[in-house]
Amino acid sequence: MECLMQKSYHACLIIIGNEILSGRTQDKNIQFIASGLGTQGIILREVRVIPDDEAVIITTVNEMRPRYDYVFTTGGIGPTHDDITSLAIAKAFGVELLRHPDAVKRLERHYGAGELNEARMKMAYVPEGATLIDNTVSSAPGFQIGNVYVMAGVPRIMQAMFDGIKHQLKGGAIIESRQLSVYFPEGIIAKGFSDLQEKYPAIEMGSYPFIRQARLATSLVLRGSDIALLERAYMDLEEFIDSLHGERVEEEAE
Amino acid sequence: MECLMQKSYHACLIIIGNEILSGRTQDKNIQFIASGLGTQGIILREVRVIPDDEAVIITTVNEMRPRYDYVFTTGGIGPTHDDITSLAIAKAFGVELLRHPDAVKRLERHYGAGELNEARMKMAYVPEGATLIDNTVSSAPGFQIGNVYVMAGVPRIMQAMFDGIKHQLKGGAIIESRQLSVYFPEGIIAKGFSDLQEKYPAIEMGSYPFIRQARLATSLVLRGSDIALLERAYMDLEEFIDSLHGERVEEEAE
Repeated sequence: MECLMQKSYHACLIIIGNEILSGRTQDKNIQFIASGLGTQGIILREVRVIPDDEAVIITTVNEMRPRYDYVFTTGGIGPTHDDITSLAIAKAFGVELLRHPDAVKRLERHYGAGELNEARMKMAYVPEGATLIDNTVSSAPGFQIGNVYVMAGVPRIMQAMFDGIKHQLKGGAIIESRQLSVYFPEGIIAKGFSDLQEKYPAIEMGSYPFIRQARLATSLVLRGSDIALLERAYMDLEEFIDSLHGERVEEEAE
Repeated sequence: MECLMQKSYHACLIIIGNEILSGRTQDKNIQFIASGLGTQGIILREVRVIPDDEAVIITTVNEMRPRYDYVFTTGGIGPTHDDITSLAIAKAFGVELLRHPDAVKRLERHYGAGELNEARMKMAYVPEGATLIDNTVSSAPGFQIGNVYVMAGVPRIMQAMFDGIKHQLKGGAIIESRQLSVYFPEGIIAKGFSDLQEKYPAIEMGSYPFIRQARLATSLVLRGSDIALLERAYMDLEEFIDSLHGERVEEEAE
C-alpha cells in the first residue's frame, strides 16, 4: 500500500509591475503559471502584485522564500531603467550582481556585436550563484537562485521560460478537477452541495456563479488528488443535479 | 500657490479565490479596480490573491488594513459552503456576524418569500457595525467595515458594487498618463529614455515591450499628477523618438 501522506509542494508568484497596478495592462501571467504548476503537482498558494520598487521587491522576496517551496517572479528584467528586478533579487540574497559569461555569449549571438549596447548588456547581469533560465524568444535569460525563479513579464517570453523549466520542478500528487455547470443560481443547490462537501471532506468543492445567455448559471468544481474518490464524488454530484432536473450548460463556463 | 505636498491615498486589493490560484479562472477584477481607483486619485500599491482559507483571510486583512488607506476584497460572499469571507472578516475585526435587517429586506424583495431559503439568507449576515454596499445586479449586498470594502467576485456584480461606492472614496491628486508606442525594441531607446527619466524625476517612466505583426515594439508610458510637467516630458519624449526616426505604432498596445 502506498503512503497516503505524500508531501505537498507550495508556490508563490510575485508579479512585479507598475503597469498591472495602474490598470494599464491586463495580467495574463497568473493563469498560465497557476495551470502549469498544477500539472506538475505544485499548488500555487499566493500571488502578490507589487510595484517596481526595490525595497518592496527585497522585502517581498525575503518574506516569501522561506515560506514556500518555490517562488516565481515575473517582470523587470529588461534593458531599461525601470528594470530593477535582478539587482533587487541580488540584494535580497545579499550577493553581488555579476556579468554572467554564458549570458553575454547568448546576447552576442542574438544581437551581433554592433547592436549589443550597454543597455542590452545589462541583461547579462545576474546575482552571483544564479543559474540561467533559457529565453528561446529573445535570448536575454531569466535566472534561478535558491528557490526563486526570475522570469520576464512579457507573456510570450515568460511562457517560453516557464515551459523550459517546469519539468525540472519537483511536485507532489497532481490535483485533478471535475466540473459540472448547470442553469441554476447558487442558492438552489447550496444545501445539497454543502452536504456533498461534508460527505467527501478530502475533495475541495467550489461553486462559481456566472451569467450565460442572460440566465444565471453555476459551475460546480470538485478537486482532489485521489482520482477514484473524485470520480465517486462527481457521480454523486451528477445524481444530485439530476434529482433537481437541472439543465446542464453544455459549453465550458468562462 | 497651492501646497505641493498633497496627501497620497494608497490601497490594497485582496482577491479571495481558489479558482484564480488553480488557474481555472482568468482574473478580470484587478484591472477594473486598479483603473477605477486611479480615476479617484487612489494608488493601488499591492494585490494579493489568496485561497478561501479562513486563517489566511484573517491574517491578510489584519496585515493590510493598518498599512493602507483602503483595503478592497473580492470573492466569497455568496450562499454556498465555500463562501467564508464575511465570517472571516468579522473574526478579523473581532466582532459578531449578524443578520442585517436591511439586507434581509433586499433579499426578500429580490427572491420573494418562498425562494429565500436558508442558504440565501446567509447573504444577509454581515459583521457587526458594517454598512451595506449596494448590489444592483442580484441584490445580495457587499459591505464596508472600517477601511475594508468587501465585494463579490463575479466581475459584473463586483463592477456594479465598485461603481456604486467609488465616488465616496476620498483620494489625492489624480495621476494621468501619456503613452507613445514605437516599432523599436527596448534596447534601442533604453539610454535616451533613462536620460529623460533623470531629467524629470517627478514623472514615473515605464517601458513595456510587445510584439505587433511579428515586429518588436515598445510602449513608453509617462505618469504623473503635475499635468504641465507631464506634457513637457511627453514633448521631449516625442522629440527623442523622432530624432531616431522611430515608426509609431498607431493602435494602442495590448
